[in-house]
Amino acid sequence: MKIELAENYGFCFGVKRAIKIAEENTNAATYGPLIHNSKEIARLDNDFKVSLIEDFKAFQPGDKAIVRTHGIVKEELEDLEQSGVEVVDATCPFVTKPQEIAQEMSEEGYDVVIFGDEAHPEIKGVKSYATYGARVVTSVEELENVKLHERIALIAQTTRKVEEYMQIANYLIPRHKEVRVFNTICNATFENQDAVRKLSKKADIIIVIGGKNSSNTKQLFSIAKENCPNSHHIEDENELESEWFRDKKHCGVTAGASTPDWIIQNVINSIEKSIN
Amino acid sequence: MKIELAENYGFCFGVKRAIKIAEENTNAATYGPLIHNSKEIARLDNDFKVSLIEDFKAFQPGDKAIVRTHGIVKEELEDLEQSGVEVVDATCPFVTKPQEIAQEMSEEGYDVVIFGDEAHPEIKGVKSYATYGARVVTSVEELENVKLHERIALIAQTTRKVEEYMQIANYLIPRHKEVRVFNTICNATFENQDAVRKLSKKADIIIVIGGKNSSNTKQLFSIAKENCPNSHHIEDENELESEWFRDKKHCGVTAGASTPDWIIQNVINSIEKSIN
Repeated sequence: MKIELAENYGFCFGVKRAIKIAEENTNAATYGPLIHNSKEIARLDNDFKVSLIEDFKAFQPGDKAIVRTHGIVKEELEDLEQSGVEVVDATCPFVTKPQEIAQEMSEEGYDVVIFGDEAHPEIKGVKSYATYGARVVTSVEELENVKLHERIALIAQTTRKVEEYMQIANYLIPRHKEVRVFNTICNATFENQDAVRKLSKKADIIIVIGGKNSSNTKQLFSIAKENCPNSHHIEDENELESEWFRDKKHCGVTAGASTPDWIIQNVINSIEKSIN
Repeated sequence: MKIELAENYGFCFGVKRAIKIAEENTNAATYGPLIHNSKEIARLDNDFKVSLIEDFKAFQPGDKAIVRTHGIVKEELEDLEQSGVEVVDATCPFVTKPQEIAQEMSEEGYDVVIFGDEAHPEIKGVKSYATYGARVVTSVEELENVKLHERIALIAQTTRKVEEYMQIANYLIPRHKEVRVFNTICNATFENQDAVRKLSKKADIIIVIGGKNSSNTKQLFSIAKENCPNSHHIEDENELESEWFRDKKHCGVTAGASTPDWIIQNVINSIEKSIN
């Protein structure tokens, strides 16, 4: 049986980069969870002595603080630096970019509008960089009674759908002299979905690895099942059943955005054992 | 009978301004027709000695050249100035603006895309200001096999419909890092249409004044007729029939974008006479 990984699966570029940074900075602490995966955070603590601090005031001068992938609020970053903490920035570059845009546009006199979730750490961070403030919205309705300037800079949360972003753009453009639309959406999530769609059309069994509550993993599983009814959603190798693989010729494997490579590798090793 | 002018009618701001400039510059010549209305051009020649020169090379040092509302190509303007011709700029400010945007964006490294008619004098002018060139398109299809840079500046011809402009914006935004959308559309034409729509709902007769071949006048007439079947399209007061006004209480008057105020005033004077 052939085992084939989806062209895109699991961690995105920014998460992989953050983990590498953490592994290179032993005896540091991340400010807040580095990524949304507790097993991986436990591994970093055990193997690399990278602990987790939830309150940034708990950092002491001389400590090493790793800034997580979603970024943090500008003022907190400045406080950390001013209090003598060594800051290692693991903010995803795709998040640093909208932070920079928010600051630059705000200082150039644009009214900054952010399409995203005000409560999400990424958006809290991006908004904090808009020197003269920014308006965060999730729908056109939230803009309807709002008075904005003639020149607008529009920024999106990296995980939003471009179709929904365009609704905001379509509302603003006819109503303002200039709308600078920054395409800050990152396609990683959608790339995983496209890849499993493609793979599930040619495989006769699909294994989707990820937390049972993980929304993006469930979406991958749902797409896989559409094309390949013999699809299975597991959290790790312990859930595999050798029965599934009987008479199968082509096994496709994918994983949710919060699934580390070592769990995926464990699953692949177990599949290989079960078919021999 | 009450006679009421539509809230918006006839010449737009830019045309009125250009005529005022011409009237203030006797013994000058316009380079190309100042506006698209031969009666008005004849009036300026007769009353203000403002003639019409079609070839810009015919201007002599010391001549006074009036630049028309649609603007001209940058190089021709520079040639005129360098050859000692006194240039009086009657370019509509709503056209000067996209010219300035085209130059600034091109020099800032943006790929300039213009939504408009490549053969129209306005667009020839605007395009000429893009120092490193610009692409002129009328539809999304024309962009499909085109390789553009990551940063786009989008400009529209002033008379285009915003819905069509948005189609271009919707195509470009998801495909590029940044799209700066400049809303350079002027609403004058649409304001005349909105105004006659409103007026024709309350009047019991509508007089639409403008050339029988004028496309925008015909549109006004068509809108008027929808709400007020007793609508009439005339070129001047000689076509009025007193019969039309019998037992009417409320006469609405509008005019196409190429109809000068003095023709409108002649019509209103004749209506007043015919009802007394």
